[in-house]
Amino acid sequence: MERDIYEEDHEAFRDLVKDFVKRHVSNEAIERWDAAGEIDRATMLAAGEAGLIGLSVPEEFGGAGMLQDYRFRTVVMEEVIASGAGSLAGAFGIQDDLAVPYLVHMGTQEQKEKWLPRMATGEVLGALAMTDPGAGSDLRGIKTNAKKVDGGYILNGAKTFISSGSTADVVVTFVKTGEGNRPDAFSLLLVEKGMEGFDQGKKLSKMGFHGWDTAELSFTDVFIPDENLISGKEGQGFIQLMLNLPLERLSIGVAAAAAAQAALDWTVAYTKDREAFGERIADFQNTRFRLADMAATTDAMWAYIDRALLAYKNSTLSAEDAAKVKFWATEREWEVLDMGVQLHGGYGYIMEYPIARAFTDARVHRIYGGTNEIMRDLVGRQIVGKR
Amino acid sequence: MERDIYEEDHEAFRDLVKDFVKRHVSNEAIERWDAAGEIDRATMLAAGEAGLIGLSVPEEFGGAGMLQDYRFRTVVMEEVIASGAGSLAGAFGIQDDLAVPYLVHMGTQEQKEKWLPRMATGEVLGALAMTDPGAGSDLRGIKTNAKKVDGGYILNGAKTFISSGSTADVVVTFVKTGEGNRPDAFSLLLVEKGMEGFDQGKKLSKMGFHGWDTAELSFTDVFIPDENLISGKEGQGFIQLMLNLPLERLSIGVAAAAAAQAALDWTVAYTKDREAFGERIADFQNTRFRLADMAATTDAMWAYIDRALLAYKNSTLSAEDAAKVKFWATEREWEVLDMGVQLHGGYGYIMEYPIARAFTDARVHRIYGGTNEIMRDLVGRQIVGKR
Ligand SMILES: Cc1cc2nc3c(=O)[nH]c(=O)nc-3n(C[C@H](O)[C@H](O)[C@H](O)COP(=O)(O)OP(=O)(O)OC[C@H]3O[C@@H](n4cnc5c(N)ncnc54)[C@H](O)[C@@H]3O)c2cc1C
Ligand SMILES: Cc1cc2nc3c(=O)[nH]c(=O)nc-3n(C[C@H](O)[C@H](O)[C@H](O)COP(=O)(O)OP(=O)(O)OC[C@H]3O[C@@H](n4cnc5c(N)ncnc54)[C@H](O)[C@@H]3O)c2cc1C
Repeated sequence: MERDIYEEDHEAFRDLVKDFVKRHVSNEAIERWDAAGEIDRATMLAAGEAGLIGLSVPEEFGGAGMLQDYRFRTVVMEEVIASGAGSLAGAFGIQDDLAVPYLVHMGTQEQKEKWLPRMATGEVLGALAMTDPGAGSDLRGIKTNAKKVDGGYILNGAKTFISSGSTADVVVTFVKTGEGNRPDAFSLLLVEKGMEGFDQGKKLSKMGFHGWDTAELSFTDVFIPDENLISGKEGQGFIQLMLNLPLERLSIGVAAAAAAQAALDWTVAYTKDREAFGERIADFQNTRFRLADMAATTDAMWAYIDRALLAYKNSTLSAEDAAKVKFWATEREWEVLDMGVQLHGGYGYIMEYPIARAFTDARVHRIYGGTNEIMRDLVGRQIVGKR
Repeated sequence: MERDIYEEDHEAFRDLVKDFVKRHVSNEAIERWDAAGEIDRATMLAAGEAGLIGLSVPEEFGGAGMLQDYRFRTVVMEEVIASGAGSLAGAFGIQDDLAVPYLVHMGTQEQKEKWLPRMATGEVLGALAMTDPGAGSDLRGIKTNAKKVDGGYILNGAKTFISSGSTADVVVTFVKTGEGNRPDAFSLLLVEKGMEGFDQGKKLSKMGFHGWDTAELSFTDVFIPDENLISGKEGQGFIQLMLNLPLERLSIGVAAAAAAQAALDWTVAYTKDREAFGERIADFQNTRFRLADMAATTDAMWAYIDRALLAYKNSTLSAEDAAKVKFWATEREWEVLDMGVQLHGGYGYIMEYPIARAFTDARVHRIYGGTNEIMRDLVGRQIVGKR
């Protein structure tokens, strides 16, 4: 079904994104990123130059100032994912949805001035480190801690699974600054590349997203100056995370819909082109039934996502709404991509084909940003009024 | 539920396999195979020495002579897959289920003498090349062809997706030797490594099975001597494939059950060990429900597979039975492994974890050996008596 949420500005922006994709995304580029295990900085700088990242950075700090209109980010994801460059879309997402917002919404004036202009250009790349090796879903179970000392903090501990963690210049890091696990026992600190005792350790070898780094980080007596405490206030870290998680979850929902749409398009094209037994693969009844399922599911995803995008714009997207969107859209994405792989036959298993990449990328959508079990738990509790 | 199909001999053989696994499989070995994109020959020779391959090679040719008792092969698969070495299990499977049987069942006396003794030791590794780039499901749509000349054939064409294709010393190759696509227009030829014009081309980059090579092969005016025509009779190739496909499909069903069992075991251990919110992951009700699903599904798989193994032994496993087992078991495997990945949280996405490897391996089970659509088509036709 036709979507109706875009206005002229969004479509003009889409042309710009398409132009960027034409110039910077190719099979060769994708293979280069995969081999390196990360997006090269030149591409990120080009994205900054073209205005594809830093969308929510206010204009006074050199950004596009599209704070509450997530439709522009949606356009970026649609086009980049459709080009087969899931890893690039991921890297853009970390910068715009997981790093920049903490500075835009919660940074002090000095923090904004120091970081945002270079985050809009891609000179400074960010990451968000919440997960400890021993605690992911249970965020308040982390052990990474910062002890107050004169003029700052001494940080010790480790983080794992940090997207863009080895390439980031600045990492918004969730740490314990108090005792126990009360919500006010946590803070967010900006940890900078090159700080003594900060190791942006080994890249993890993943099922998918081969061109996007995911790293272990470790902190050994790292001195973090007071000016690197997000918002300048201690004990706000957990609440600050909670404030941004809906955006993070919406963004995963959008990525899921974009990937389902891309998979549908690739699969329609493939099955109309490939032949067996003297017919197009598309002509077998099973194929048509599966394509019909894929198409209806994708339409439903967009209808839901589009409504969520408008709710976000009107500041009415609740935490539970975002959680619902996240788990529901990523489960549907998974079904659609699985059918897409299957209809490609053997070629669906070969990484050269965009469907194979998108499929292996998709598997983590059900896990990160809060697992789909945690999402259901959150939504289910609200529904029944548990505790 | 307890299985009851094994006799003393099988359990004694299991000890031998366990011992081999202990000596030759380790994380280091698995990473070495993954990095190389193939199993090293030394390991295959050790497997030959230990009696883990060539199980169906008759004793007179140096094998174990366990022709119709697939339970021994099942023991190999269970133990190797449980060790996390899916690629090694795959390489064993090609040798024993896809290459050796064509010689044992259909080879001439000379062919048996020439090849089987060295196939039992691992000195000669085999592969089976049916799929053309343009025709997989539709086997009779291949274009690879062999023209009769004095003393042999001139072979031209290309194959793709050939498991063990770059490491194989001898490739059982499905070719056109006649006009049109009548069943008698095809033959099986033994193509040998190093033959002029035979290129065991590039290894394909796959979603999973990283330690097991899958290659494109190309043939440019390759001269194949008459003695390399399987069974010495032209025009029998299609029927010969049909005769062995049930074994190939049973073997995929067995691999699927072994992987489901392994995934269940890994996941039970993991969720009992890992904690969140002050509880074991295993203690959340959702986890227990999923583990119950996984366990019941795995039990059902074994019950079905075990019945099929005995039917195979009694020569009563029909082509449709094997097709049913193949598609049903691999669909169930996929469900079980997907739950296993999910219950591992972020770690389920990291290739270091056996569940991540087994999951990416499993995806192709629904595609190769005849896609699950082709299996359903075959079974469905029989049920309704179509044509
Ligand atoms: C590729 C990748 C990128 C990532 N990027 C980042 C990043 O940039 N920054 C960051 O901070 N983190 C990141 N993560 C971490 C991710 O957010 C966590 O993996 C995720 O939150 C799950 O945590 P865990 O892995 O510790 O699993 P666990 O919390 O140990 O959960 C294990 C299993 O138990 C289930 N479970 C847990 N609690 C409950 C409950 N109460 N009820 C029922 N079931 C439950 C989970 O759903 C899961 O199935 C990333 C992970 C991956 C794999
Ligand atoms: C890792 C890997 C290893 C492999 N190993 C080997 C090997 O060792 N030797 C070998 O010869 N081959 C091998 N193959 C090839 C494999 O057997 C084929 O990929 C498979 O048979 C499907 O053929 P195809 O890829 O040409 O798909 P196609 O035949 O083009 O099928 C495309 C899609 O159409 C569907 N379809 C086709 N016909 C019908 C129909 N009549 N009705 C409904 N749907 C239909 C299929 O199910 C599939 O979903 C391997 C493949 C892979 C990926």
